[in-house]
Amino acid sequence: MVVNIVITMKIGIVGLGLIGGSLGLDLRALNHQILGVSRKATTCEIAVSRGVVDEASTELSLLQGAEIVILCTPISAIADTLKQLIPYLNPDTIVTDVGSVKKPIVDRCSALWSNFIGGHPMAGTAEQGINAAQSNLFQGAAYVFTPNPDTKMIDLDKLQTLARSVGATPYICAPQVHDRAVAWISHLPVMVSASLITSCIGESDPEVLELAKHLASSGFRDTSRVGGGNPELGRMMAEYNNQALLRSLYAYRHDLDCIIELIEQEKWDKLAEIFQINQQSRPQFLN
Amino acid sequence: MVVNIVITMKIGIVGLGLIGGSLGLDLRALNHQILGVSRKATTCEIAVSRGVVDEASTELSLLQGAEIVILCTPISAIADTLKQLIPYLNPDTIVTDVGSVKKPIVDRCSALWSNFIGGHPMAGTAEQGINAAQSNLFQGAAYVFTPNPDTKMIDLDKLQTLARSVGATPYICAPQVHDRAVAWISHLPVMVSASLITSCIGESDPEVLELAKHLASSGFRDTSRVGGGNPELGRMMAEYNNQALLRSLYAYRHDLDCIIELIEQEKWDKLAEIFQINQQSRPQFLN
Repeated sequence: MVVNIVITMKIGIVGLGLIGGSLGLDLRALNHQILGVSRKATTCEIAVSRGVVDEASTELSLLQGAEIVILCTPISAIADTLKQLIPYLNPDTIVTDVGSVKKPIVDRCSALWSNFIGGHPMAGTAEQGINAAQSNLFQGAAYVFTPNPDTKMIDLDKLQTLARSVGATPYICAPQVHDRAVAWISHLPVMVSASLITSCIGESDPEVLELAKHLASSGFRDTSRVGGGNPELGRMMAEYNNQALLRSLYAYRHDLDCIIELIEQEKWDKLAEIFQINQQSRPQFLN
Repeated sequence: MVVNIVITMKIGIVGLGLIGGSLGLDLRALNHQILGVSRKATTCEIAVSRGVVDEASTELSLLQGAEIVILCTPISAIADTLKQLIPYLNPDTIVTDVGSVKKPIVDRCSALWSNFIGGHPMAGTAEQGINAAQSNLFQGAAYVFTPNPDTKMIDLDKLQTLARSVGATPYICAPQVHDRAVAWISHLPVMVSASLITSCIGESDPEVLELAKHLASSGFRDTSRVGGGNPELGRMMAEYNNQALLRSLYAYRHDLDCIIELIEQEKWDKLAEIFQINQQSRPQFLN
């Protein structure tokens, strides 16, 4: 018989959007006491009425006494939020974030607070904001944590337990390993897909362009999906993960050039070989 | 009151795979007499037993007296099949094909048979072969016809009526316009997507590669789908549509370079503008 003892904690969430709100719903359902902070009073009201948090405020002082604080603001606001939060923290409060890039955030935040552990739950929907918050968003998702050299194992364990409690699978790695991995599987696809849309709409013959629009089906739809998404998200990826992303983009451009060269030289067997390797390799990326 | 008078015809189908078989199922359900030819006797047996055709044979002579013959073989076999078929055709038999590239096929086939009209029903599934044949595969699909200068309007009308009768929407254009349009929305996405897989699996740090495989989710899955598909199909696209595809690839590479440059120069506003235009433009390609 397995007994799961869930120790309930006082948990603060700053930023009550899709991720912050969904974490609130799941953690509150596990009997933790959830304190939410949003810049907007209306978001606070919705969060309380939807049962996302126990209490909400536009003031960071609400988080006094929290054992864990999860920063769920946009990437650009994370470090500044932590700076303003520090006066209200106990010395042993664990602070984590949910930003999709880790190195620049961890560098700044660890310098501000030694108990800062970077985090990235790999979940989302096309919707945003408190009204998009939903239960079980993290079920089956990967949840990366990037401890710093001063991180205590007991604090890291607490966060991993929290991740598991909402159904996610925790992974531990260095911030730069996270950033290079997500550059490959998340940020590069956005740039690749965006360039596809840009080049298609650049067709100068109106008859060809019009026909292309009519003939486009699932192949175009899937390949162009992430490149036609939220412009601010695309910009953030590029801005905050530019080094790892450029590294992936250079490798991609090289491999694209190889394919172009094979077509120019009519080396069809060699081209088919590449497709064969791709067909065999792709399933390793599909969990 | 609209009266649809369906005139039943004797229709030949050469190549009883997914497309040929599915056309057979739909056209036979509309009471046309369907004669099927396959290289393999077992395929002929399955086609008859599944009700895909009325009669099947490994011999093209079966098609004597057919009013319309639809060539559904792989692209590489279309023109040779037509050459072997000619002795059995009536002078006014309409011959069409279902190849995904039109210019090279139409050039060869129109020279062989003036009543040849290129065709391309834009439908498919991941499955192949006679056992994958299904009813209603063409419902809502685009079906392109590429007449030649000698094509009679009455013959083109017959094919358009046939396409509409299986639920498809016919489009008429020149072969090269078709090839340029599908290069954009079908063949370019395959090359773009293939390069993505190739570059990801090329990551030299095993820890990053392993983490990338674990973290990959819907963004990578969708963007890599068509690049991880049937190697023979990818090769055929490149081989038979190489001129239009290279044109699209050069434009794509240029637009990718622009995105790389904006990231190198940290021009985030300009990058966000591109994403914005993409987000607004993409729905024009989704029917």
